[in-house]
Amino acid sequence: MQNIKDYISQHKQRFLDELVQLLKIPSISADSAFSQDVLNTADSIKTSLERAGCDLVEIHETDGYPIVYGEKIIDADLPTVLVYGHYDVQPPDPTDLWHSPPFEPVIKPTDLHPEGAIFARGACDDKGQMYMHVKAIEFMVKTHQLPCNVKFMIEGEEEVGSNNLAVYVAKNKAKLSNDIILISDTGMIANDVPSITTGLRGLSYVEVEVTGPNRDLHSGLYGGAVANPINILSQMIASLHDDNNHITIPGFYDKVEELSATERAEMAKAPFDIEAYQKALDIDAVYGEDGYTTNERNSIRPTLDVNGIWGGYTGEGAKTVIASKAYAKISMRLVPDQDWEEITQLFKKHFESIAPKSVKVKVTPHHGGQGYVTPIDTIAYQAASKAYETTFGKKPIPQRSGGSIPIVSLFEQALGSKTILMGFGLDSDAIHSPNEHFGVWNYLKGIETIPYFYKYFTEMSS
Amino acid sequence: MQNIKDYISQHKQRFLDELVQLLKIPSISADSAFSQDVLNTADSIKTSLERAGCDLVEIHETDGYPIVYGEKIIDADLPTVLVYGHYDVQPPDPTDLWHSPPFEPVIKPTDLHPEGAIFARGACDDKGQMYMHVKAIEFMVKTHQLPCNVKFMIEGEEEVGSNNLAVYVAKNKAKLSNDIILISDTGMIANDVPSITTGLRGLSYVEVEVTGPNRDLHSGLYGGAVANPINILSQMIASLHDDNNHITIPGFYDKVEELSATERAEMAKAPFDIEAYQKALDIDAVYGEDGYTTNERNSIRPTLDVNGIWGGYTGEGAKTVIASKAYAKISMRLVPDQDWEEITQLFKKHFESIAPKSVKVKVTPHHGGQGYVTPIDTIAYQAASKAYETTFGKKPIPQRSGGSIPIVSLFEQALGSKTILMGFGLDSDAIHSPNEHFGVWNYLKGIETIPYFYKYFTEMSS
Repeated sequence: MQNIKDYISQHKQRFLDELVQLLKIPSISADSAFSQDVLNTADSIKTSLERAGCDLVEIHETDGYPIVYGEKIIDADLPTVLVYGHYDVQPPDPTDLWHSPPFEPVIKPTDLHPEGAIFARGACDDKGQMYMHVKAIEFMVKTHQLPCNVKFMIEGEEEVGSNNLAVYVAKNKAKLSNDIILISDTGMIANDVPSITTGLRGLSYVEVEVTGPNRDLHSGLYGGAVANPINILSQMIASLHDDNNHITIPGFYDKVEELSATERAEMAKAPFDIEAYQKALDIDAVYGEDGYTTNERNSIRPTLDVNGIWGGYTGEGAKTVIASKAYAKISMRLVPDQDWEEITQLFKKHFESIAPKSVKVKVTPHHGGQGYVTPIDTIAYQAASKAYETTFGKKPIPQRSGGSIPIVSLFEQALGSKTILMGFGLDSDAIHSPNEHFGVWNYLKGIETIPYFYKYFTEMSS
Repeated sequence: MQNIKDYISQHKQRFLDELVQLLKIPSISADSAFSQDVLNTADSIKTSLERAGCDLVEIHETDGYPIVYGEKIIDADLPTVLVYGHYDVQPPDPTDLWHSPPFEPVIKPTDLHPEGAIFARGACDDKGQMYMHVKAIEFMVKTHQLPCNVKFMIEGEEEVGSNNLAVYVAKNKAKLSNDIILISDTGMIANDVPSITTGLRGLSYVEVEVTGPNRDLHSGLYGGAVANPINILSQMIASLHDDNNHITIPGFYDKVEELSATERAEMAKAPFDIEAYQKALDIDAVYGEDGYTTNERNSIRPTLDVNGIWGGYTGEGAKTVIASKAYAKISMRLVPDQDWEEITQLFKKHFESIAPKSVKVKVTPHHGGQGYVTPIDTIAYQAASKAYETTFGKKPIPQRSGGSIPIVSLFEQALGSKTILMGFGLDSDAIHSPNEHFGVWNYLKGIETIPYFYKYFTEMSS
């Protein structure tokens, strides 16, 4: 690729300004109060793709938020890369923990990002990483160096399960046909330790409701005599793990892929500093499934976490009440070979079975998706690896991520395509947390690296 | 007492109108947003006592909400009755479960209150029951039948622990000197089964905070590798009861008064229909400590209930987050001989001791109070019993209540006075719950019964 460094340094400020504008729109897909903002973000992406040089850009309606589709077809005989990303973001709360408003982006340096990082909800997940691709195509088109065809599919419901994307993909297989799917929605180990994500965990997300008495009761008059839904819910949640922190749902581990000692030894080579990890989180000890390391616990092992719990009086002061209902949002991260719908049913069956007769339990599945493993012996992986090597000066490490991008396995089923995950964020960028940010260096390095993937993938494919 | 029935029927509408006006003021002591309303309620009580015929009425400031003091001294040689009540109310939430707004009183009939019940927060606890005393003194003064001296002490912090009342009482022992304390802040078994509360449970109310990582984390990247404060809090709460629903805090039961088989047999005579109880609460089974009946579980046995729990994402939709913190409000109902401050310390010590190294735990005591037992061989109890017999036509049953009025034991220590608890509400009146109400019949029957207590207590004292 000629002049890419020049192009980036020349347009750096504009690249940043455009992303900042995009980050100002609160496209929170989980909260219907922001639906107009989500729709406005789709329009903004459409305009960006048109300006970047796509020949055709369309907003495709779904039963939920629309999908922005764009394409630049230069030669039907050349390979086609389908870029996927999402323009919706996680809710920013707890907002009081943000040092600057989540939708008023500010750029300031951090220890890991001395050249500055953009602080805003969605800066890294996924507006920032998605927009790298828009700027990369801009460079390739404007400098007449686009070596293959490219299609964009940018959705607005990734943070709430991508339910409508599945329908859309099934209906548009021909339009979306491609040789490889390219996604930047994961991270890398460190700025000086590039890595490519080769595995993703699946997800099953459910909400549970425990109902005791038909109304809130005075805890003095009824305390001790009727089941307290909060106490019961706590007991039920506690019982989902045993003393070794194994999950107790019958059949939960039946299909879990066990890695060989060799594979685990390979994984163990990735640089990891447990002291630094604990210090960064301000915890005195890590915690998890017996028999596995921290990096194994958050990547190759399935987990069960309560993401939210509420019930009774949570306001200021004291209220002596026994609540009628208690609720929890619970998600399970799954590993390859675990089927999310099967796990969801196992959870439902088990959770309902452990409820005492004195309460009623309702389990509502939210959404989910399968895990995924990228083979590293493919042209796509080799091309990506060579691209990182070119711009980072060192070979990237293949790494399993604990996160989930449910649609990756969906793409393989529906489109028969493999996915390559080129992520440029860091785990410490606080995605899904207050003060989410994305390094300016990472943003620009992504824009620089992506065109090389197109180049090498096209060369290796011929 | 002459003409009391006539007086009540003649002034019935005004008695109701005055209570309705009082109930319209949202005097929620737990929520500082309503502080002006709480203060306005104190002023309203002052005016009511003056109009009722008190010679002296003062608003005494405290570090919290003021105490309304009133008195009518007719002869220093006659007995003095000190009436205690409170003008603050519980928070009304969840407000969406109210059939009419909590501070817009409406009167409508119910199965148990065919003559109508007043629906409003505080209708029964305690504005309605406290105001019966204001109307009772009005009757005795206006008809020149007040047989003894009377003092009123109406506070505004009962629902948040009465901390400042303790200071006030200690400072005003002479002013508050009395022969008996009279309180209507409890219930009776049924309109055709009058009862007098002879026992109250103590209370220890604490708030706990469990902190894991120093920020909310992505449950995919960190799930399974760090302690999730909500999962940990659930486990800690679950561990506070064993399989027999005994509380596991070391030393918790050491001072619990065990009732004799005879006493338990006496208690068992009180009419109780378990089917009706379950049906009223829409539960398939009761739940509680093994080896005790429902009426024992909620009266003579100590309990531990979570009154509120919260943490993580509780909004619409899904958020895959591991919260940094999880919280719970926990209250313990105590029985006579358990010291609430000692129990609070036992809880704190135990709860901190069971926290895994991977989290930090903070326990903050809110408030508490001792349990209490009224001797039934006293003049006060006999006078009260005779008063009920006079107006209800049958002897009342002595009954232990599961509720707590911490200041009752405080009064005995500070003022050396016994307390008689003449309650006219029903357990089904939903105090502390949505749709709290108080029967019109009960309100008027209380106004009718109270003057007889003054009469008999004075006669028996001479």
